[in-house]
Amino acid sequence: MQDALLALTRYWTERGAMVVQPFNTEVGAGTLNPATVLRVLGPEPWRVAYVEPSVRPDDARYGENPNRLQTHTQFQVVLKPDPGNPQELYLGSLAALGIDIHAHDVRFVEDNWASPALGAWGLGWEVWLDGLEITQFTYFQQAGGQTLDPVSVEITYGIERIMMARQGVAHFKDIAYAPGISYGEAFGQSEYEMSRFYLDDADVETQRRLFEDYAAEARRLLDARLPVPAHAHVLKCSHTFNVLDARGAVSTTERAKAFARMRGLAREVAGLWSERRAELGHPLGTAELPAVAAAPAEFPAVEGAHPLLFEIGTEELPPHEVTRTASAVERAVTEKLAATRLGHGAVRVRATPRRVVVLVDGVEPVEPDAERTVRGPRASAAFDADGNPTKAAAGFARGQGVDPADLRRVDVDGVEYVGITRTDLGRGAVEVLSGVLGEVVAELRADKNMRWNDPKLSFTRPVRWLLALLGDTPVPVAAGALVSGRTTRVHRTAAEPVVEVASAADYPGFLAGHGITVDQDARRALVLASAGELAATVGGAVSADESALVDEITNLVEQPNALLGSFDPAYLDLPAEILTTVMRKHQRYLPVRDADGRLLPHFVAVANGDCDHDTVRAGNEAVLRARYEDAGFFWRADLATPPATMKEGIAKLAFEERLGSVAQRAARIGAAAVEFGGLSDSDTPVLRRAAELAKFDLGSQMVIELTSLAGTMAREYARRAGEPEEVAQALYDMELPRSGGGAVPSTVPGALLALADRFDLLAGLFAVGAKPTGSSDPFGLRRAGAGVVAILRAFPELRALTVSRGLSTAAEHVRAQGIEVRQEVLDEVAEFVRRRYEQLLLDAGHPHEQVAAVLVLADAPALADETLAELANRVTDPGFATLVAALQRVRRIVPADTAPTYDPAALVEPAEAALHQAFDKARAATTPGLAGFVPAAEVLADPVNTFFDEILVMAEDPTVRTARLGLLAAIRDWAAPVLDWQGLGTSLEKKN
Amino acid sequence: MQDALLALTRYWTERGAMVVQPFNTEVGAGTLNPATVLRVLGPEPWRVAYVEPSVRPDDARYGENPNRLQTHTQFQVVLKPDPGNPQELYLGSLAALGIDIHAHDVRFVEDNWASPALGAWGLGWEVWLDGLEITQFTYFQQAGGQTLDPVSVEITYGIERIMMARQGVAHFKDIAYAPGISYGEAFGQSEYEMSRFYLDDADVETQRRLFEDYAAEARRLLDARLPVPAHAHVLKCSHTFNVLDARGAVSTTERAKAFARMRGLAREVAGLWSERRAELGHPLGTAELPAVAAAPAEFPAVEGAHPLLFEIGTEELPPHEVTRTASAVERAVTEKLAATRLGHGAVRVRATPRRVVVLVDGVEPVEPDAERTVRGPRASAAFDADGNPTKAAAGFARGQGVDPADLRRVDVDGVEYVGITRTDLGRGAVEVLSGVLGEVVAELRADKNMRWNDPKLSFTRPVRWLLALLGDTPVPVAAGALVSGRTTRVHRTAAEPVVEVASAADYPGFLAGHGITVDQDARRALVLASAGELAATVGGAVSADESALVDEITNLVEQPNALLGSFDPAYLDLPAEILTTVMRKHQRYLPVRDADGRLLPHFVAVANGDCDHDTVRAGNEAVLRARYEDAGFFWRADLATPPATMKEGIAKLAFEERLGSVAQRAARIGAAAVEFGGLSDSDTPVLRRAAELAKFDLGSQMVIELTSLAGTMAREYARRAGEPEEVAQALYDMELPRSGGGAVPSTVPGALLALADRFDLLAGLFAVGAKPTGSSDPFGLRRAGAGVVAILRAFPELRALTVSRGLSTAAEHVRAQGIEVRQEVLDEVAEFVRRRYEQLLLDAGHPHEQVAAVLVLADAPALADETLAELANRVTDPGFATLVAALQRVRRIVPADTAPTYDPAALVEPAEAALHQAFDKARAATTPGLAGFVPAAEVLADPVNTFFDEILVMAEDPTVRTARLGLLAAIRDWAAPVLDWQGLGTSLEKKN
Repeated sequence: MQDALLALTRYWTERGAMVVQPFNTEVGAGTLNPATVLRVLGPEPWRVAYVEPSVRPDDARYGENPNRLQTHTQFQVVLKPDPGNPQELYLGSLAALGIDIHAHDVRFVEDNWASPALGAWGLGWEVWLDGLEITQFTYFQQAGGQTLDPVSVEITYGIERIMMARQGVAHFKDIAYAPGISYGEAFGQSEYEMSRFYLDDADVETQRRLFEDYAAEARRLLDARLPVPAHAHVLKCSHTFNVLDARGAVSTTERAKAFARMRGLAREVAGLWSERRAELGHPLGTAELPAVAAAPAEFPAVEGAHPLLFEIGTEELPPHEVTRTASAVERAVTEKLAATRLGHGAVRVRATPRRVVVLVDGVEPVEPDAERTVRGPRASAAFDADGNPTKAAAGFARGQGVDPADLRRVDVDGVEYVGITRTDLGRGAVEVLSGVLGEVVAELRADKNMRWNDPKLSFTRPVRWLLALLGDTPVPVAAGALVSGRTTRVHRTAAEPVVEVASAADYPGFLAGHGITVDQDARRALVLASAGELAATVGGAVSADESALVDEITNLVEQPNALLGSFDPAYLDLPAEILTTVMRKHQRYLPVRDADGRLLPHFVAVANGDCDHDTVRAGNEAVLRARYEDAGFFWRADLATPPATMKEGIAKLAFEERLGSVAQRAARIGAAAVEFGGLSDSDTPVLRRAAELAKFDLGSQMVIELTSLAGTMAREYARRAGEPEEVAQALYDMELPRSGGGAVPSTVPGALLALADRFDLLAGLFAVGAKPTGSSDPFGLRRAGAGVVAILRAFPELRALTVSRGLSTAAEHVRAQGIEVRQEVLDEVAEFVRRRYEQLLLDAGHPHEQVAAVLVLADAPALADETLAELANRVTDPGFATLVAALQRVRRIVPADTAPTYDPAALVEPAEAALHQAFDKARAATTPGLAGFVPAAEVLADPVNTFFDEILVMAEDPTVRTARLGLLAAIRDWAAPVLDWQGLGTSLEKKN
Repeated sequence: MQDALLALTRYWTERGAMVVQPFNTEVGAGTLNPATVLRVLGPEPWRVAYVEPSVRPDDARYGENPNRLQTHTQFQVVLKPDPGNPQELYLGSLAALGIDIHAHDVRFVEDNWASPALGAWGLGWEVWLDGLEITQFTYFQQAGGQTLDPVSVEITYGIERIMMARQGVAHFKDIAYAPGISYGEAFGQSEYEMSRFYLDDADVETQRRLFEDYAAEARRLLDARLPVPAHAHVLKCSHTFNVLDARGAVSTTERAKAFARMRGLAREVAGLWSERRAELGHPLGTAELPAVAAAPAEFPAVEGAHPLLFEIGTEELPPHEVTRTASAVERAVTEKLAATRLGHGAVRVRATPRRVVVLVDGVEPVEPDAERTVRGPRASAAFDADGNPTKAAAGFARGQGVDPADLRRVDVDGVEYVGITRTDLGRGAVEVLSGVLGEVVAELRADKNMRWNDPKLSFTRPVRWLLALLGDTPVPVAAGALVSGRTTRVHRTAAEPVVEVASAADYPGFLAGHGITVDQDARRALVLASAGELAATVGGAVSADESALVDEITNLVEQPNALLGSFDPAYLDLPAEILTTVMRKHQRYLPVRDADGRLLPHFVAVANGDCDHDTVRAGNEAVLRARYEDAGFFWRADLATPPATMKEGIAKLAFEERLGSVAQRAARIGAAAVEFGGLSDSDTPVLRRAAELAKFDLGSQMVIELTSLAGTMAREYARRAGEPEEVAQALYDMELPRSGGGAVPSTVPGALLALADRFDLLAGLFAVGAKPTGSSDPFGLRRAGAGVVAILRAFPELRALTVSRGLSTAAEHVRAQGIEVRQEVLDEVAEFVRRRYEQLLLDAGHPHEQVAAVLVLADAPALADETLAELANRVTDPGFATLVAALQRVRRIVPADTAPTYDPAALVEPAEAALHQAFDKARAATTPGLAGFVPAAEVLADPVNTFFDEILVMAEDPTVRTARLGLLAAIRDWAAPVLDWQGLGTSLEKKN
């Protein structure tokens, strides 16, 4: 292992990195060393590499766990500014470590990084070696609350993991550390003893005092304008906090306070450091970024129509951005071309993680010329009585550089002007495309965008090259520092990773020749087909349920290369959900099942491009084995812990700073669920027991590790602890639905708990101001809102539990914690939930008028659903249309503030008396819902129309007028709860 | 610089060292990393290399000082066990650093290491590169209070220094740290800010609390049997203590307490670690040491007489041990050969730092046979009346395997026995020498001895080879693991460093052929001659006062290679003592002076063997420049500080744990000196002022750095602060004499202060039990005792101030601090001082009888001196001899307890009356001192002798007997204060 550290050190120093030593106080990660966290600030260049033994008291396991150590070894590299080819440099370092990247499957898998405590975030990847995460690769965007300019690249190697994989050992202690000495021999005693210290023996009162002393010293040092020692003391604070945490001595309140304090100090350190560096005149100078490329000025002419190829070369895009970007670019190219006069055929966009390829058929060589009219003064003012040009006309002609005699009459919106006609000469295709494509690149945006070494561009990942050919003519495109060329990049492991492209013709075929399937659908089909074939060799199949995973895989590779891996059937003793969650979530492996849906001890991993199958299979199998070992470890540990004990553990888990611990949240949910049960006659022993246990599995090691197994593990552990099956199921159900469109609870107690969960989430977080923004929804409130709707739609019997009722109950429990929850906030949440419902209906294809009409009922979505169904049945019924028109007419006439009361005696005209009588009858005949309303109400259509035909509502006699308006208002208010009649608009009229 | 760290790392890993990371809490040295301080304990092998940024808050200088940093970079190597060739491995590492050891002068200069706080010590060297200390090289003998077995080799490189030398830069900030980035650019801000923290901004109360918390945590962790985290907390303690110290916040009491606490904890950690490793079964196994060599069994025969060559090859011996060992080996060889019958010529021993060479002329090929008598029973009991052998004789004969008839008579001390004569056959010379020389090696001992990888041997430094030839015949010698051969080692930088030796003949000539002058006198002459020649080239000379330094230099090299170096004459503005002290003490350079004794801007450095003069000169000059820069820095800083302020600073300097601070000691000295002044009519304003300022310069930066300048700087700084010259001189004088035979004070106030200083030292340290032992005298008490004597001898006018008076005054001041000082202790000190005086007199060649005679006066050495001088005048005088004999006779006869009173009336015999009268007359005529006593007393000689001839002292009449004894006792007691007459023994009789 020490040779690996030396090899990395040498590799990076040969590439201009300075070496520094690990920090001389305990740090949790190399990032915290001032050589990273301070040096990434400000304009000075910095390139550094170092080893950092990273101390995580929480990971202490007495040296027993095969993968988890209280101190693990990071190798940290910071490149500031981004050198433009950090991935290539990184791959070179793997070669320096003796890793043959041609044999192995090396991939960059989206993994973003954020440390609110450091006010820092970045975008990047985890790097996988045959499925094993060996490196974190991050483009630092912000640190200490400061936006970084230039951006730094941070590369963090997890050395123990790399070594375990390289040496094929299953426990960190077995790593050959140095010739003749194993890791365990070298560090085993320390690992055990430091674990003892962190987990058992550190004195809590002492550590608390140390925390205070360090924080106070940091404060004083900030005041003395000394960011370096201040930072060291923040680190000491942080480590001490971690020790206290590992000792289980941090309450949620303390945690929140400590974090706030450390965050504040860290930000001040960063700010002060930046100031001090500026005062020192930035001793290391200012990093130089590439210059903005000059706008193209020479545009070769082409003859005849040609296909266009435009490739935007990127570093590995997040899977969902591959798809999203392909659509966005297709739209942008289409629109921008449409704004020119350039003729062209079909626009298609294809994408892989490393490229977005625009293909346009038959682009004409030039734009046609176009005539354009320039308008002058009105014709009436253009000529005097003698027919000579007036001063105005003469001036206009002079301004346009024409003879007044050349002015002709033009008609604009029926008014006659004088004007001239100009011919705009069409530009050449290359010039047009150069502009359009440059804009497309400059305007690329994703959900989360980042900066790299480009002076202008911003995107989800760096754009590294542009390729633009019209037929075989290069199209000069400039964007940021990039200029297009006629080369592309194929697999990084190819013999020639950069290749020249002769022509735009059949570029997908050209790429296929280099082992790249650029068409997403084709790639997806390849993934499915090859995975299916491999699964079939062991009598299994890949479930159709894996569709989302297949989509993700499709966008993780440029060339799917599926491998069948196996694992020890003994692991099948673990619940299948655990096994598949590990496969999917951690590894993106496709589970293989038999005809009965039972899991087989196999999986399909999809590598990218050529590799040595045996090597890659072995690697992936080893990773899965280690993960299953871990899972087995958690599973057995959890089984030894009764649910009640686990539940006690969640008191230590922070939920949200102001809303307290997970235990507090679970208590609120449980109480609300029981109240909901009372509301809907569902208060049962099962509900009460499940409410008691709510969220207990969040205290299990398995769920702490694999949060998506919350609920699943609750059911498993509850069953094994002897809880009734109904209770176990309710606990499972309460976490449903897990996603939009996901399964909803199957039981009423589960549904009530799930609702209570989501109402608590919504009411609580909106109350503390943590509502989602356009791009950020960290607590998943949109999903929660959609979940409420989904559950209420699935359980019509719970209709008494309206959204507003649920929210106000939840709010009561939040308020009991001393947190203010105003009614406006709850109204806002209700509206937020209504929007989710609306979206669901629209997404399901319901006409927007009908959706608009039933939204008034969204407080009870099941009712709204029924109404909508009824509405859909009736919209083709002319009688219904008449009714609707009549009711809309009533509503239009009556002022909103008119009271729905009237004296029938004042209604003396026949038409008004008839309406009154018809209304009385209808009102008596109505039953609930639209279905009960329409048959009764239809009789009103004619009397209403007659009424309006024959009666002047606004009679001079106020008594009469009041009665007439009151009658109409009564009809209006009687109809209002059924439907938003106005919402239907005139859609029915048109249809009929 | 980073390349150097990598090169070292690679070099040592290629030699089996494991690499670890710097420790993740602040440490003051690489030694404190558990990878050294814990791993050197116990039997397990360990070989490790690592970088250790070493934090010394006290060295913080805001990054301004060119050589001093609060964090400097150590590269640490531990080799356990000693591999047998660690020096050679080390030199290889210099080559790996790109240092051409053939061009440079690389030397191993004695430098031992001890850390009482760690209960650790070792012997070794500082390694010099052209005069620059670049490495500490230590054989660890003890750690944590445990004797180490096996011994570890610790090599600590000071990287910044090496780099400054390699790169030829004068300030650490200018070191090229990495391509394009200097040390200052990389670490300058941190250096400044951490200096601020350590010197100015660390919060004292917080740090005190941290100290307590860490210590308490360490305590708890020890109780929990977790040595690893306990050690980490001891280090945290230690660093915190250093921070407090740098902040000037540690009083001497606190320091003593803190040290005691840390020492206790560190020892417990070491003990616990050892226990735990044993309990774990010593996971790394047990280090293997070389086996003890088999005793030689084959001894080739030689013909004729041959010279013997025996070489004991060592690693660099301390200079004084070169000389000491040469004598000891010469004595041992001579004595051991004398105990054999082997004939041989002269025995000579020559020595260099790397070899002790025994040369014996004309060794006979075999021992002569020898006859040996075996004694049996007495002759009288050997034969019966019939002349037949008795049973006893027969048994003896049988036991000896001879016929009883063969018994013959032998005379032993005048008694006749029977016996037999046996012939012991002489052994061959090789066999005899093998035994003798093996013993010589096994019995080698020095003042301080150490162990290395040898299973048996112990010496001041490792013995690495043995060479033994009798003529050209190898003599097999075994000692420890070593067996002798016929090879020697010449300069390590020689093309062939190991060479075969054909014959014992002219070995010095053989070595000379390899550039080694084995004869010390010849080497010394070479040093002197070449230094003198070089000095002459710049019109200067090397003072004869440098004799001790020349001796040292002679023993630091095997081949003197003197170089003339120069320094900027601007430095001559500094006091010459500073410049020469730096040259001598730090660098072993010979100062060059002009004819008037004024310092010239040159020096002579003496390299070892061949080297590139320009390179080595440049290196040495750079080192001196840096040292002078430092000195200039201290000088200027000190000049800006008034003496009174400096004096305040010494309150922070610990003198001795129980005796308190240096300030307390200075106060005791000052007070005692003033009292002494009163005693001798010398209480003057000068004395009082000097007493006030006593020791103030110990608070100066210069003296803190160069302690031997104490007094010298006091005079300089006092003068420049405007103190009267007499005060300045007294402050200078009070530090005199600096060594045995050194100059004594030139003024009375200075003498009084110097005496007060030494009386305080002696009384105080004996009182607290810190008296010197055979090999250890850390406070220089022998020197202090000798100093008292030297001063009192030089100032006869101070005779009223006797040793006992001085000690009791000093004791009063010590007692005033609450420390018990018993009279027996003071008597012991007085005796200790008397022994020093005795030794001085004997060393000066005074006959021991005369010395013995005047020692009774040693309480006033000036008086004793006068007496001795008078005695020396008189010893040849027969009259004096008669007087002495008479007085001795008197003393012999009179019982010690006889009272010196008598009734003259009882003395009636003529001889006794005559004696009485003569005594009366003599008594009346005596004046003080021996000179005043003898003329008066001589008249007594005859009456005494007559008295004894004619009078029976022990008369039967008790009255008479009492009077006679009383008369003699009166004479005895009258003569007693003058001289110890008995002490003269019979020496005068013999002479006359």
